[in-house]
Amino acid sequence: MFEGLSAFPLTPITSTGVDAASYAGLVERMQAASVDSISALGSTGSYAYLDVTERASVAKLTVQHAGPVPVIVGIGALRTRDVLHNLRSAEDAGAAAVLLAPVSYQPLTEDEVYGLYEDVAATSSLPIIVYDNPTTTGIVVSDTLHARIAGLDLVRSIKIPPASLDVAQVSERVTALRDAVGHPISVGISGDPYAAAGLLGGCDVWYSVLAGVLPAECLAITRAALTGEAELALQLSARLDPLWELFRAHGSYRVASAIAAQLGLVPTVNLPRPVHELDATGQRAVAAALRAI
Amino acid sequence: MFEGLSAFPLTPITSTGVDAASYAGLVERMQAASVDSISALGSTGSYAYLDVTERASVAKLTVQHAGPVPVIVGIGALRTRDVLHNLRSAEDAGAAAVLLAPVSYQPLTEDEVYGLYEDVAATSSLPIIVYDNPTTTGIVVSDTLHARIAGLDLVRSIKIPPASLDVAQVSERVTALRDAVGHPISVGISGDPYAAAGLLGGCDVWYSVLAGVLPAECLAITRAALTGEAELALQLSARLDPLWELFRAHGSYRVASAIAAQLGLVPTVNLPRPVHELDATGQRAVAAALRAI
Repeated sequence: MFEGLSAFPLTPITSTGVDAASYAGLVERMQAASVDSISALGSTGSYAYLDVTERASVAKLTVQHAGPVPVIVGIGALRTRDVLHNLRSAEDAGAAAVLLAPVSYQPLTEDEVYGLYEDVAATSSLPIIVYDNPTTTGIVVSDTLHARIAGLDLVRSIKIPPASLDVAQVSERVTALRDAVGHPISVGISGDPYAAAGLLGGCDVWYSVLAGVLPAECLAITRAALTGEAELALQLSARLDPLWELFRAHGSYRVASAIAAQLGLVPTVNLPRPVHELDATGQRAVAAALRAI
Repeated sequence: MFEGLSAFPLTPITSTGVDAASYAGLVERMQAASVDSISALGSTGSYAYLDVTERASVAKLTVQHAGPVPVIVGIGALRTRDVLHNLRSAEDAGAAAVLLAPVSYQPLTEDEVYGLYEDVAATSSLPIIVYDNPTTTGIVVSDTLHARIAGLDLVRSIKIPPASLDVAQVSERVTALRDAVGHPISVGISGDPYAAAGLLGGCDVWYSVLAGVLPAECLAITRAALTGEAELALQLSARLDPLWELFRAHGSYRVASAIAAQLGLVPTVNLPRPVHELDATGQRAVAAALRAI
């Protein structure tokens, strides 16, 4: 489960709440494409904007529509009480693993971040993926802290932020992390424009935003990279450059929302306020990029 | 209300939830000290860690125990839906104003931040204080954006982050902000070690963490600064240097929690996990600082 392609569905949110029908459609599309896992309620899935009840219902929906594909559920929240609530909901839903970011409001100390993972590991029946995303959490996880956390029994994978477009540099980064951890662990790349280089540089899995809307294209890159067809993987990724540019300009979250809406997979308004969908200019740029690829 | 000393109470949180009795005690203590306003559910009040139901109940408790002192209620949340819910609760509780930070998970654009304030202003019956706290929200509010937001009818005050310990530099900063806004508005300083210089440099109000536990000491600084006794204000603030050092080392949030516990105002465990109270070494440093001042 902690290798290959993990696809992150958007959670379409309209003025009346989570749009369960279009969400189910997104999950079924990923399942039909045979992604290796589906990661519900990641950043792309708007987990930070949903309350514990909404999150329980999205976790259930995902498992119901994922068929045989293992489901990973994001359980991060500002307060440990809510994280543990989300953990219970993920277990009840039948998730195969949970994904946990050290979300913060007050900047957290290393001991506090470790304590969060320790509290979750103490009560979890599911393997845990460490979600390292400094842009959204405000927390920079050092390799020393990664090593402490990875020492907890249930921790099986680390989702790292974008490393480099240079395969040798990624390889150096991944080796340093693995050396710090000191025992075998899955390492996953995020930041889709950096994924091909990430997989070629030694990551086991691509935790992917774009696979939530274009699973087939992302699977092709993943399969090429993991079977050693380096040139093909980089070529297939380069074909998506027009999208990667937009990811860098507007954030993958808003661009994936626009792609999904333009493909008719979700309603036009699908992000939680205060976040807004791309404006008309942004939408036209996405349409042009989709035509170009 | 948007001048003088605004005291920010902690919200003591134990394993069974908000400790209403000790919270009421904190509020009554501030009221007895005659602070100019009480700001419930600020960062010090753990607002980011409480759900909408807990926040409604803390807002009510504050007004019930504040006597004649006007109550400001923090309404920030990651999702606009919850911000508006908190606004209704603050209105229902009888708050005099609301305090709103652009809390973020996905980094927000300037238009999104403005849109949040616009959505709140469109439905609020209460004046709004803009809470600019990049350390916790991850959002840097430019002066251009401040000016746009301050153009909304109900926006009456801006709570700025620590400016400088140099009065002339603060004065420059506050003048630049007032020039950008272009009409009279209250400007409030936060970052307690910077408060005396802030008030002497032209701020109207001190939005104060320490006043939540030591209101009398903070009032003395405020009164001196706002009646032009510059030297006295700086002297009184300098007497608190042992505390300011700890604020810088551990964050004012954890230090205020330790002071309140050591004064017997709140239980020893009073912060929401994953945040931890200071460890034994930190507690001893706080005890020493309290003896020294």
